[in-house]
Amino acid sequence: MNPMTHASHLFGPLFSDPESEALWGTARFVDGFIEFERALAEALAEVGVVDHTVAAEAVADIGSFQPDFAQIAKNVVQDGLPVPEFVRQLKAHARPSALPAIHTGATSQDLIDTAVSLILRDANARFQAQIADLLTALDALTDTWGNATMMGRTRMQAALPIAVSDRIATWRNPLASHINRLKALRPKVETLQFGGPVGNRASLAPHGDAVARALAKNLNLSNSDRAWHATRENLADYANWLSMVTGSLGKMGQDLALMAQQGVEEVHFSGGGTSSAMPHKQNPVRAELLVTLARYNATQLPAMHHALVHEQERSGSAWSLEWMILPAMVTATSTALRHAEELIQSIESMGRSTP
Amino acid sequence: MNPMTHASHLFGPLFSDPESEALWGTARFVDGFIEFERALAEALAEVGVVDHTVAAEAVADIGSFQPDFAQIAKNVVQDGLPVPEFVRQLKAHARPSALPAIHTGATSQDLIDTAVSLILRDANARFQAQIADLLTALDALTDTWGNATMMGRTRMQAALPIAVSDRIATWRNPLASHINRLKALRPKVETLQFGGPVGNRASLAPHGDAVARALAKNLNLSNSDRAWHATRENLADYANWLSMVTGSLGKMGQDLALMAQQGVEEVHFSGGGTSSAMPHKQNPVRAELLVTLARYNATQLPAMHHALVHEQERSGSAWSLEWMILPAMVTATSTALRHAEELIQSIESMGRSTP
Amino acid sequence: MNPMTHASHLFGPLFSDPESEALWGTARFVDGFIEFERALAEALAEVGVVDHTVAAEAVADIGSFQPDFAQIAKNVVQDGLPVPEFVRQLKAHARPSALPAIHTGATSQDLIDTAVSLILRDANARFQAQIADLLTALDALTDTWGNATMMGRTRMQAALPIAVSDRIATWRNPLASHINRLKALRPKVETLQFGGPVGNRASLAPHGDAVARALAKNLNLSNSDRAWHATRENLADYANWLSMVTGSLGKMGQDLALMAQQGVEEVHFSGGGTSSAMPHKQNPVRAELLVTLARYNATQLPAMHHALVHEQERSGSAWSLEWMILPAMVTATSTALRHAEELIQSIESMGRSTP
Amino acid sequence: MNPMTHASHLFGPLFSDPESEALWGTARFVDGFIEFERALAEALAEVGVVDHTVAAEAVADIGSFQPDFAQIAKNVVQDGLPVPEFVRQLKAHARPSALPAIHTGATSQDLIDTAVSLILRDANARFQAQIADLLTALDALTDTWGNATMMGRTRMQAALPIAVSDRIATWRNPLASHINRLKALRPKVETLQFGGPVGNRASLAPHGDAVARALAKNLNLSNSDRAWHATRENLADYANWLSMVTGSLGKMGQDLALMAQQGVEEVHFSGGGTSSAMPHKQNPVRAELLVTLARYNATQLPAMHHALVHEQERSGSAWSLEWMILPAMVTATSTALRHAEELIQSIESMGRSTP
Repeated sequence: MNPMTHASHLFGPLFSDPESEALWGTARFVDGFIEFERALAEALAEVGVVDHTVAAEAVADIGSFQPDFAQIAKNVVQDGLPVPEFVRQLKAHARPSALPAIHTGATSQDLIDTAVSLILRDANARFQAQIADLLTALDALTDTWGNATMMGRTRMQAALPIAVSDRIATWRNPLASHINRLKALRPKVETLQFGGPVGNRASLAPHGDAVARALAKNLNLSNSDRAWHATRENLADYANWLSMVTGSLGKMGQDLALMAQQGVEEVHFSGGGTSSAMPHKQNPVRAELLVTLARYNATQLPAMHHALVHEQERSGSAWSLEWMILPAMVTATSTALRHAEELIQSIESMGRSTP
Repeated sequence: MNPMTHASHLFGPLFSDPESEALWGTARFVDGFIEFERALAEALAEVGVVDHTVAAEAVADIGSFQPDFAQIAKNVVQDGLPVPEFVRQLKAHARPSALPAIHTGATSQDLIDTAVSLILRDANARFQAQIADLLTALDALTDTWGNATMMGRTRMQAALPIAVSDRIATWRNPLASHINRLKALRPKVETLQFGGPVGNRASLAPHGDAVARALAKNLNLSNSDRAWHATRENLADYANWLSMVTGSLGKMGQDLALMAQQGVEEVHFSGGGTSSAMPHKQNPVRAELLVTLARYNATQLPAMHHALVHEQERSGSAWSLEWMILPAMVTATSTALRHAEELIQSIESMGRSTP
Repeated sequence: MNPMTHASHLFGPLFSDPESEALWGTARFVDGFIEFERALAEALAEVGVVDHTVAAEAVADIGSFQPDFAQIAKNVVQDGLPVPEFVRQLKAHARPSALPAIHTGATSQDLIDTAVSLILRDANARFQAQIADLLTALDALTDTWGNATMMGRTRMQAALPIAVSDRIATWRNPLASHINRLKALRPKVETLQFGGPVGNRASLAPHGDAVARALAKNLNLSNSDRAWHATRENLADYANWLSMVTGSLGKMGQDLALMAQQGVEEVHFSGGGTSSAMPHKQNPVRAELLVTLARYNATQLPAMHHALVHEQERSGSAWSLEWMILPAMVTATSTALRHAEELIQSIESMGRSTP
Repeated sequence: MNPMTHASHLFGPLFSDPESEALWGTARFVDGFIEFERALAEALAEVGVVDHTVAAEAVADIGSFQPDFAQIAKNVVQDGLPVPEFVRQLKAHARPSALPAIHTGATSQDLIDTAVSLILRDANARFQAQIADLLTALDALTDTWGNATMMGRTRMQAALPIAVSDRIATWRNPLASHINRLKALRPKVETLQFGGPVGNRASLAPHGDAVARALAKNLNLSNSDRAWHATRENLADYANWLSMVTGSLGKMGQDLALMAQQGVEEVHFSGGGTSSAMPHKQNPVRAELLVTLARYNATQLPAMHHALVHEQERSGSAWSLEWMILPAMVTATSTALRHAEELIQSIESMGRSTP
């Protein structure tokens, strides 16, 4: 949506993260649709809704399917989403005898939400690794500078001396908690969506729940008792986690920018930013960006809560709003974690010799 | 802050909840300060920082203390908070020999944050009861009308028939999850704040952590390894919970307002609202208010995330922002739960005889 | 809504403004209803819809009417607003022959929105005076300290020296523009609401527009071609103005808090805040509060834009959301202006003798 | 930032607008830098700061300059923005004798903010045309269906019949006002930025203001008395305008989605969206998207107000936040206007034959 902050733009490296962007790209997204259809074909056979031979044919045809992306894009506004045309093409590609195992019992929302779940699984694995790396870097910082003294400050005023380790602890401890929060959240967001047209799995009755269980297992996702087409609390909760991570990093960035002020000088970085007019200045660019990204995610978060007001069995407007918000928040969080680690790595000294 | 939506205003009953407002009133708040100081005096003695006789004198003097509220209000802008004047008065009231057991090792933030924790403990107990009551009402609704048929609707269009119980499940299940989320959150927000001037418990060293443990036990609050003066993730997480609750209720309200439309008529209420110009109309006032309160809390939530960017050892600006937001969110949530239950109770019929 | 930040609470003086709260109180609000009904009776006669004698009786009966507030509060949830019961009582109080001149052609929304317009007229007059006073104080500051030198800072780093007057200009100039913006906005928000049940003035046809013109003139409000029941852009635009004012003040507060830091010391205040643990500290409480109030209003603003999605002829949920937001923003703005002036008045020196 | 809603993604046509994206692309952005440097060289000569021959050489060298984008992207994180490396390259490319006319008196922020102003000039011209086209379409709709009758609805309930033209007026009139608001705003946002390193034009003293006037004239932008490096009210005000436009369109979208419901059927569209599971459904996709885009812009708006808290002479964090928000809001607004016009064009009938 924002053409100025993308990986490919001049400003991109400040705001974006190529690994995270790739997760949300068209290729990866449509792979999710294909994974879903293949796993569904197999699940239908496992539960006995279709014969194993039919499922095998479907799996083979799904495997050889090459979507016509241009045609999908052409129909996406009319349909409101890319799935109807994707399914039309897939069905046209498949042999007629395989059709009973393709998209049976599913609806567009099942494919899209599940594709998002598969992306979030990868994003979350990366988040865990990024936070773990950052904790390691902060621990190393504590080992080196933790016993130094610096001025504790409250209400922007010097209060009493503290250890540098006291300050670092206010950056480190929330991140350690965020890993635990993420572990608890992962099963709720790395979860199958499967409900059919109106979310009650009725078109596969009485096999709906059994197909869901098999499908979730095939996709290595968690399963829930009911489809969550219209109950999006898991995503709102997850967005809150993303914004808490960037908020914690924003506190660290703000502290470091304040510590780097002339007259305070409680931290020194290698290779600070420069200015076109004053080449001698050492600007704490990454520290400032952590504040920016914190305020960005805080700004986005309420949209995921407005999207909880999801009318009836499927709200086009509330659901679409999630697509405008969630990928941007994930990317901002990855970007902030990347900047945070490089910022910590660039610290050359902390604290003051004479407190 | 909003003089138009208070309990005592003409508009108050729509937006407010007297029980919740009372929790945040001046009397209850200052009671929290007094509870803190008494529990601290006892903790100091238990750990051996002061003699038990000194603590007993302090407890007695704290018990007989009557704050001069007018004088506190007079000084609150100069001090930025009511605690310094409260402590001045308390110390002036106490016998000199009791002073070593009064406010020792504490700072203003310890008293205010702990007072909030004590209030949230009561608020949370009420939330659990309110949600449980609402679940009971929804279960009764399912028992009575769940087998009726209604039209499932996606993207605001009739799709396929569903059971009324399918629709109710999208209201009920998130609420059941919210109770579990709250149980997990309670120890993190019903928690002692104790850090002293710069948050590191240093002025009581080496007894700081022991005093904190005893103090938390005396107050029946959880304890954390470090003070959370500058790490406010627990409150941001809690605010997210509040907004998820009102978001889930907002979905229910929006559905019910849509079901009550002429031409749809899938629900009938007893005693709907009236209009000054069209006395025959039956307005779904409480259903609409649930949407309003959902959007209100969603709007407030980002402030608690901006407040995570809490500079240094104590940010006056970030901390004060919490006071403007959190009590309003708690009150909005109580109010929404109250309206939700009355709305469900007022349902006279659901579903359509001829789907 | 927020029971902790009201004028009457211990924390109230930090966040509230008694003059602004009084504007939104029950008494003032209901006065607006009464002003409306009286002016309507007169307008109906002026246009010839009723006889002047009927209007005179109505005006007399409206003048002697004492609403039963308790009964209004009792019915407000059922009706969704206080007007239906107010009108029932007023009609019961009036002599039967006066009834044709009471509430004729009007609806609840006409009374509430017009009452808000009347309140905003007083609030705006006060804003103009408050900003003018602040500009005077800033000009005096420039006269005294403007030629002194201080360090210009970019990206939180010392850049090149500037004059103190350069810094003050970044606080002053936006405020001067805000007065002009307010003058342009006032006719759009100090405006009559008059549309009748579905907003098209049809029940008075063909006299609807003529009655509106006369009514607006009697109330000394602007008039618009059509009722704005469902088109709330004027209020969204006004909320934007409120948040711009507090945003501009927030920049000033942030600058002053940074200038007051030890090691920077580019400003000195008389009578800074104190701390319960460190009585020597001089906390820039009002400067921090300006940041808090800026973030508060920025947080509230989107609700007024969500409320633009105002379905059909009257949205109970979108309209009610305005009531939760707008009075709080007005009060926050008054409060910020009050703190800003006192903060500027408390400046004892600015700039550095040795840049 | 959001890799899922871009023009090139499968979901792109729903959320994006290729014309608007192109405005913000790298090529157009760097063109703005080049336009600035050329106009500055000429302005310096016009005012007499450099000789005309020097300026002519500079203009020639600027004209033949080809930036090394890869190198700019490589340095952007270190510098916090792309300008320092751009200027290094430009100066290395130019003949030494031309250097006095290149970047003299300017700073990075002057180039970036002015480049944004130049983009907004094009965006605004397009907005005016888009809104004018939409007004024409709405007028045609009124001509065709305005005299038909439909049910007026308040609080989601049938109230009294209205003319279709009454409803359309609530969509049309705010848009007509938005054109006027835009005309008043354009000089404030299509405006030169020129302040030099700390925003006071001091390095060109006493010619700073004269150079600014000439530069603005050369670029066909408005000029202001002082640089607006740290006073961003013009952009906050503009963002408010963007969100008001999408808010007004969101009301129209919400109304149309409600009118298209079965049981209401007050509007019929040609070619509605389809569903993978229920090919017979006619989903009001564009109507829903208007609601989505309204909530998106409302969500983004507060970030531009938080960015008003722009500390000192230049805030890296507040300024960067604008880059994450404003281009996305502009694109969302263009997209909404595009969908709105196509939605109105697709209306086949309005109102009910039997009210």
